[in-house]
Amino acid sequence: MSITLFGTAGSTCTSLVLTTLFEKQVQDFVLKNVNLAKGEHKKPEYLKLQPFGVIPVLQDGDLTIFESRAIARYVSDKYEGQGTPLLGKTEKERALVNQWLEVESQNYYPVVSSIAYQLVFGPRRGLKPDEKVVEQQLEKFEKILDIYEEHLAKNEYLAGNFFSLADLSHIPYTYLLLHQAKKGEGITSRKHVKAWWDKISSRPSWKQLLDLRAQS
Amino acid sequence: MSITLFGTAGSTCTSLVLTTLFEKQVQDFVLKNVNLAKGEHKKPEYLKLQPFGVIPVLQDGDLTIFESRAIARYVSDKYEGQGTPLLGKTEKERALVNQWLEVESQNYYPVVSSIAYQLVFGPRRGLKPDEKVVEQQLEKFEKILDIYEEHLAKNEYLAGNFFSLADLSHIPYTYLLLHQAKKGEGITSRKHVKAWWDKISSRPSWKQLLDLRAQS
Repeated sequence: MSITLFGTAGSTCTSLVLTTLFEKQVQDFVLKNVNLAKGEHKKPEYLKLQPFGVIPVLQDGDLTIFESRAIARYVSDKYEGQGTPLLGKTEKERALVNQWLEVESQNYYPVVSSIAYQLVFGPRRGLKPDEKVVEQQLEKFEKILDIYEEHLAKNEYLAGNFFSLADLSHIPYTYLLLHQAKKGEGITSRKHVKAWWDKISSRPSWKQLLDLRAQS
Repeated sequence: MSITLFGTAGSTCTSLVLTTLFEKQVQDFVLKNVNLAKGEHKKPEYLKLQPFGVIPVLQDGDLTIFESRAIARYVSDKYEGQGTPLLGKTEKERALVNQWLEVESQNYYPVVSSIAYQLVFGPRRGLKPDEKVVEQQLEKFEKILDIYEEHLAKNEYLAGNFFSLADLSHIPYTYLLLHQAKKGEGITSRKHVKAWWDKISSRPSWKQLLDLRAQS
């Protein structure tokens, strides 16, 4: 049975799921474009799938699942023996993958998404960036990146010496920070963070995502 | 080998881990109190365990793990065959547990913790609540709770007909919202949300947590 993913390749959250599907070498899926400009994510038939009215949603047989991090975890779990192992092989590895997934979710993402809102998403809707908020968030981000730098000086990837969903989960918003918000100095000025970023963002899965974006 | 948990029973995040340990009937652990008033969480020896300087942290043999949601998941995973099963038994159940864990993390928690900051944590440090922020967040919370109400009208618990870590993860902050922030009307005024809350907050694990708080 094939998977249907509702979303759009240009969205950070849909990109997380797509990149996970690419890492797991899942070919058998259909991306159904949700037209945000037309408000398709707020229509009753979509709200039946995702009551919060945001993308993405995945359908796999009789399972409907939303929240991109939960979908990425589902795909990683379901295709455990296929493609790149993303959740860790031992109990300890799984614990550290989960720890860094939560660091992304609770520390990295709130700051980066706030900057993205001010500099990218807000302006698309005609809002002017609040420079004070941007400055405060960038200051917070520097402190977070100092912790990443120290950790990545001793570890090739976040959860240890293997690429995992914890690393992957950082890619879509970091790419947006660098290439759309143009606030990537914190990443590129730190030796180990930069080396990590160069490594994870040059993976074929992310290139495949960027190709898909270019086509859509 | 016994587990050491660094934190304090009065903290929401430490409470999540403690309640998980109680649900899993893990007896063999030590709670090492971290004195936040004395700034013990910002001292160099603590920062070696938790570089972000927050509680809790768990040590289990040579594994040190932080981020309460990741620790709760670790405990649920490690003691899978013991106490209450918390992560779901089938692939579909696990997917729905993960979905609702992410709904808590990305929707429920940001709003409730923001209200808690304004009305409980801030005032402890002498800050005056920003009533406008409280009002905005309560408005957001109402919309979230409408979605919960509709879902819980059809499901006994968040992930289906079984109690899981997804439900448990809501307890500490909801309790604080009701009993410390005194802003629980959204919960108590909704039939199915209230029934769900009464059920999950009367579990022996949460009572054990409240007993521990009362003793400390």
